[in-house]
Formats: sequence, structure tokens, C-alpha cells
Amino acid sequence: MERRKFLRSASVAGAGVAAATLSAPAISAGKKELVIVSTWPRDFPGLGLSAQRLAARITELSEGRITTKYFAAGERVGAFDAFDAVASGNAQAYIGADYYWKGKHPAFSFFTSVPFGMTTIEWNAWIKFMGGQALWDKLSGEFGIKALPCGATGTQMGGWFNKEVKTAADLKGLKMRIPGLGGDVMAKLGASPVSLPGGQIYENLVSGAIDATEWVGPYNDYFLKFYEAAKYYYYPGMHEPGGGLAFGMNAKWWGSLSKWEQALITAACMEEHAAQYEEAAAKNGEYLQKLINDHGVKLRQFSDEIYDSFGDASKAVFEETRAHSKLAAEIHDAYQRVLREVGGWQKIGEVAFTQQRNRVLGM
Amino acid sequence: MERRKFLRSASVAGAGVAAATLSAPAISAGKKELVIVSTWPRDFPGLGLSAQRLAARITELSEGRITTKYFAAGERVGAFDAFDAVASGNAQAYIGADYYWKGKHPAFSFFTSVPFGMTTIEWNAWIKFMGGQALWDKLSGEFGIKALPCGATGTQMGGWFNKEVKTAADLKGLKMRIPGLGGDVMAKLGASPVSLPGGQIYENLVSGAIDATEWVGPYNDYFLKFYEAAKYYYYPGMHEPGGGLAFGMNAKWWGSLSKWEQALITAACMEEHAAQYEEAAAKNGEYLQKLINDHGVKLRQFSDEIYDSFGDASKAVFEETRAHSKLAAEIHDAYQRVLREVGGWQKIGEVAFTQQRNRVLGM
Repeated sequence: MERRKFLRSASVAGAGVAAATLSAPAISAGKKELVIVSTWPRDFPGLGLSAQRLAARITELSEGRITTKYFAAGERVGAFDAFDAVASGNAQAYIGADYYWKGKHPAFSFFTSVPFGMTTIEWNAWIKFMGGQALWDKLSGEFGIKALPCGATGTQMGGWFNKEVKTAADLKGLKMRIPGLGGDVMAKLGASPVSLPGGQIYENLVSGAIDATEWVGPYNDYFLKFYEAAKYYYYPGMHEPGGGLAFGMNAKWWGSLSKWEQALITAACMEEHAAQYEEAAAKNGEYLQKLINDHGVKLRQFSDEIYDSFGDASKAVFEETRAHSKLAAEIHDAYQRVLREVGGWQKIGEVAFTQQRNRVLGM
Repeated sequence: MERRKFLRSASVAGAGVAAATLSAPAISAGKKELVIVSTWPRDFPGLGLSAQRLAARITELSEGRITTKYFAAGERVGAFDAFDAVASGNAQAYIGADYYWKGKHPAFSFFTSVPFGMTTIEWNAWIKFMGGQALWDKLSGEFGIKALPCGATGTQMGGWFNKEVKTAADLKGLKMRIPGLGGDVMAKLGASPVSLPGGQIYENLVSGAIDATEWVGPYNDYFLKFYEAAKYYYYPGMHEPGGGLAFGMNAKWWGSLSKWEQALITAACMEEHAAQYEEAAAKNGEYLQKLINDHGVKLRQFSDEIYDSFGDASKAVFEETRAHSKLAAEIHDAYQRVLREVGGWQKIGEVAFTQQRNRVLGM
């Protein structure tokens, strides 16, 4: 039922109730209006509720001096039109995954998540303390956008499949919803990747238009009922190990803000960037058990052979991405260097500890 | 040189310059003064700078309506007197590690980090979305304190030793600076744990008053020059796998704040809670290389045999902690349940992915 509501709100662009509230950004009595267009359906558990929480928080922390108006996917513009709406000044900010804009520039993928890439803490370290934000600004700036992190899913599941995937050969001919460079990796292995907004995946999976899909993880995925059409749930996902979602603002609008307004929006984004990831970590275990116990979902792990194939395909995809432009190469090279530096530290920190803890506690 | 400055500011309690600025919390023209007493020496890279950044951020985000006055360890009260200063209303907030107050109640350890415990993301999930904050409020409330997370170190290193530790028997008789329940684990294995504030460790290590110490990780540890007296740097630390630091406020003062003031302080704490952890992750790799290459530090890994001994000792320590009181048992049991639930999810999420990534990329 909840799912149907998502689908409805996602598919009806420019719903009447939303259109009625539209107005140009108002500056009256020192107040600013911040129109946010989202790529998530309204009240979507996980991503959608997180985005709505952020919108409300900006209004709250600013005591209404920056008043947000939040439009879910399809309420003002379609999910994948959010970027253009903000670039053109038709809205002040979008919330979404920047790899949706890979067609505009492939390097946008690095500011969501890429195959064999950084986990969330590694990506956060890069963005905030190792030059990642400056590269993001450089890329987004070419399109009139200023983006900040505003949410993270943690390492995603590998996806939902309607048959077992025992070797890389089983991926051949699969039609799979998987955006970003992860989709390009699947294409190298003979699958046909498609990019669909969250609200349109279920109908395509049930109708057989696609055979498989990834979305996020157990908590987010649960409510979309993919298990009705695809019982095999694979881990770990190679395609989105971590990273973040974007609060992409019109760069001119951002530049017009006071230092205080910028600081306040930044703090709200950082608070929610952490919270969304933490909420998913808190709920994924519980929802994975529900999927398995209540809905007969079969949990499966990708084999080493499949992971090796993913790895080979990723190398080719990264070569093509680098070749796109000087900026793509610059961002790719910085990303891969930081991945190895921070990942190398994590290996003797959290990773080494977790291995020993799980061994000693029998987890 | 920087270290000497830390030591000086840490050891001189109630320095004149700080005392001169003391005043009762002022409420004038709608402004509130928030006096923060810290357990870190002034300008301490990592922990200290993070605490100072948080203090400045609260003033900035509130446009000075909550004006913070920050006192480093020893500037107003000694590091380990910070809790009492806030409980008595002599200051509004402390910044520190709540396991410093283990003598008041052993369950405070769970709100910093405990042996074989949660990593940072696991602890954050517990605190914010799985009932951890309510338990923290219950415990702190018994002492007139309301605490929020305000920083995290990530998984800490096992510590600095002046000789190799090849088996658990090598720990016998060691005098080691290690607070919290980790210290109790060491005691079970025949070591003599002591708790010292950061600013007093170096002098004790150099003088031979202690043989070993843990502090945080490469970035934080670098500036304390422990390598001058102890060359062996062990990982992974079993004693502080993650968790957080506390912004502990006088509960009556917190209760007197408006919803907006509470929201603003919360957002600032959450922003810094994430940032401190990310900054350490960004810098630990670089500083570990400096320690090894420039200062002849020898990196060593604790053996499985030592980890098994740590595990056995931890069980005994947790039994004793549970036996302290009903509240200690309640907090312990909740912590261990959540650890297994969230840790179980992480195992098929980030942990499984990281293993495959590192294998495929040869990291």
C-alpha cells in the first residue's frame, strides 16, 4: 500500500496541490524561500524521510529565516529533471544521487559512489578533509551548481535477481536497473543496465521489463517489495560501497547567501548526512531478518569469481571514464589515490579490529 | 615544542589569564553564555582543535545568542575535574571521554568505548536510532548531566610499548596508561593500568613511571612524541573500537533552553561528531607513515593468542560491570544486543565489501 502511494506520487508530475503552492523565491521581512526538488517519492522510508527531515531542519534551525518548500519526485518536476530545474534557477536545491547526472559528465559518479570505491567514512574523509569538496565544486560549478553531502546509505546490497547468479556468465543478457558506473560494469559483463528512479522500479520488475534491480539495502528495499518478483538478494554490492547523496544548490543562489546562512545550511546537511547512514545501519539488520523470515527472501553472496570479473570490468570502465576529459581524469586519479591512502589506514584500524572481534565473539 | 605547550597548559590548573575572564553565565539582551571546560590541552591537534571548533561553531550558528567560552584542561579546572564543575553548575558543559567517570559509575564506559565493542558507525546507530541516547540520559541524569555525542576517534591503535609484546605473558607487570574498561582488561592479564589526562602521559612515559600507553591513533599520537620512549606501536586496539566523546551539559541548564537553542546545540554537536572522526581517518594514514619513516616507529600486530586472552579477560570484566547495579546491567545488556545486531549487518555490508575490494585491488 505504501508502495502504491510512492508510485502514484512519483509518476504524476506537477500534481495540483504542489503546483498551487509554487511561487518565485520570496525575500520578505529578511526571510528566504528555499524550494527543494527531490528525486525521492514522498514519505519514502529511508531516503525520502531523510530528505524531508533535512528540509524541515533548515527551517527550524534558521527559525524560519530560510523557509524550505519540499517537493517530492513528480510533485514539481520528475525525479531526473531535478538537476536542470536547479541549474536554471527554477528551484534552489535538489536532493538526489549525483550519479544520475552521469550523462552530463561521467565524473559525477565519484560524488555518489563508484565500483570498488570508498566506504562512507573513507568518502567523507575525502570530501571534507582531503580535497574532495573542491573537486566537486569544480565539476558542479561547470553546470551552475554548488553541492554538499546530505545523506549516505552505507555499503549497498548487490541487488535483487529472479534467478541465482553463480558465475559471471549468469549476468549475460540480464536487464538490470543499476545506475552510475556500476551499470557500465554490468554492461561489460553482458548485462543491459537501465537507470530508473526509485518510484518506477517495482512496476518494471513485476512486468518483466527488467530481470533484476539494485536499490539500497534491506531497510530501504523492504518497502518496495521487490521480493514479489525477485527472490535472490545478493551481497556485497560492488557498485556502491559508500559515498553520499547531494544537496545540489543553484550556485548563484548559494553565492547570494550570507556567511551565517551558508553555515546553517552546511550544518544541517552534515547532521543529516550522518543521520541517514546511521539510521540505515540501525535498521538494516532488522529488515533483512524480516525479508528472510516473512517473505522467503534468499540471501546469497557473490562468489570470488564474480568479484574478479567485476574487478576486471571496473578497470575498463575507469579507463573510459578517465578518457572523457581532463577534469574526469583529475577527479578519477584523486579518488583512487585517496581510496588507497585512507583504505590502507582503515585496514589496520576498523577492518583489522572488526575481523578480530567477530572471530573472538563468534559473530 | 607544541608538545611542551600542551603539557604546560595541562598541568597548570586555573591559569591567571583564564581566571580573569570568569564570570557567572550572563543572560543579557537575550544572549546566553555557555562556559565549556575541556579535558584536552589547548590547541591539541585532533581532539583539542575539534573541541575548539565545536565551541566556535555554536557561537557562529547562533549568531552569538549562545556565546561559548572555552577553557582547555587546566585553564579553569583540571581535566578530570570537568565533570564535577558541570554537575555543580560552575560551568555549563564539559568536553571529554565519559569513561573518565568510570569511578562514579562503571556504565559510563559504554558511552565512550568498551573492549570488543562497537565501531563508530555501530555506536552512532545505537545512540541515535536504537535507544542508546535514552540510556545515556538515564545514567547521566543521575548526576545532573545531559550529554550528547560531539566527537569520535574511530578504532584506536593498541598502544605504544617499550618492548615487543609477543604473547599475553609479556603484558604481566607492565605499567600502562589505559583508562576505561580496557584498563580493567589489562589488569586481569597482570598489567597495572593507570588513567592520566593526555597532557600528562609523555612525562610519565619518558620518566619510566609507565612502560606503555595508548592514546588515540597516528594523527593524534604523533604530536605527543611517545616514540621517543616507546618504539613499538601495536594494532588493532581491542579497548576502544569506536564510540564517541561527550558534550556533557548541566541538565538544569539544558532544561532551561528553548527548543531552538537545544536544536542548534544538537546540530553543532552532530556536525562535529562526524567531522572529528573523518579528520582522523583523513590524516591517520599520512601520520602513520611519518611515524614509521621519520621516527623509526615499529608497527606490530597483536597476535591471535593475545586477542584470545583479551577476549577472556573482557568477559570477566563485563561480568563485574553488570554486577555493579541494575542500571549497569541494563546498559551492558542493551549494548551487547545492539552490537550483535548492527555488527551482524555490517558483516554482510561494509565488512564483506571491504574484504573483497582489498583482495581484488591488492590493498
